[in-house]
Amino acid sequence: MHLVIDGYAGDTGKMWDKELVRNFLIDYPDNLGMTRITEPNVLEYNGPKIEDAGVSGFVIIAESHISIHTFPYRNYVNIDIFSCKSFDNEQATRDAKELFDLTDMKTWLLDRGLEWLNGDQGLSETQEQRSALLS
Amino acid sequence: MHLVIDGYAGDTGKMWDKELVRNFLIDYPDNLGMTRITEPNVLEYNGPKIEDAGVSGFVIIAESHISIHTFPYRNYVNIDIFSCKSFDNEQATRDAKELFDLTDMKTWLLDRGLEWLNGDQGLSETQEQRSALLS
Repeated sequence: MHLVIDGYAGDTGKMWDKELVRNFLIDYPDNLGMTRITEPNVLEYNGPKIEDAGVSGFVIIAESHISIHTFPYRNYVNIDIFSCKSFDNEQATRDAKELFDLTDMKTWLLDRGLEWLNGDQGLSETQEQRSALLS
Repeated sequence: MHLVIDGYAGDTGKMWDKELVRNFLIDYPDNLGMTRITEPNVLEYNGPKIEDAGVSGFVIIAESHISIHTFPYRNYVNIDIFSCKSFDNEQATRDAKELFDLTDMKTWLLDRGLEWLNGDQGLSETQEQRSALLS
C-alpha cells in the first residue's frame, strides 16, 4: 500500500523545521508497525530557484520507505508512506494533515506490492491480473 | 510528475546488485534534467522475513526523489521517479525495464506538484481545482 499525499496551505514555519520532519520519520514507522532500517536522512535545500527550497527527509523501512519534501515558498508539501504491509491510510492522512497544519490535501492510494505479501504464493494468478504488460 | 513502477519477473542477480542501483541513482537524475542534491543511500537488507530481503536505494533531488526497492525472493522491484518537473515517463519506464530485465510491469503516473511549477502564480485558481478538500 502506497499512500501519496500532496498537502497545501499549511504552517510554513513547520515546513522549515528539520527536527519536526526528522522526529516524524523516526517515530512514524513504529506507529504503523513498520520496521525502520536506517536513520532518517533530512536536509535543507536552498538552490538557485527559490521556489524549490525546503526540507527533504527520507527513511528506509523494511517494507519500503517514508519520504517528505516541503516547499515553504509554495506552501506545499508532499509525503509518501509506502509499505508492503497494509496500514490505516485514513489515520495516516490525518496525521500528515496535523503535522504541517495542512488545510487542503490531495491523496492517492495505490495498491502496490500487497499482492506479494505471501512471497511467490499465487504468482501465476497475480501475473494474470496485471493490466499493464509491457512488451 | 510522479512515475510509480512495479516491476516483476526480471533478473534477480541484478536485483541483488547494489552497485547497479547506486550507479542508476547517480546517473539518472542528470538524464532527466534533475538536480541531485545528495549521494545515493543504498543498502542491502536481510531481516527476519526472507521475502523482505533485498536492496534499497534512494537519492534526493532538488525537485523530489528517486527510490528503488528490490525484493529478489519475490522477483519484484518498485521504483519511484518523482520530480516537480515534467519528464519523458515512457522513456523512464523503458529504462527501468531494462535496468532489471523486467518482463512484466505495472505503472502509475501521478500529476503531482506540477501545478506549483510557477510558485505562487495561480494559487487561488489551482486551489479551486483541487478535488479532495479535507475539513
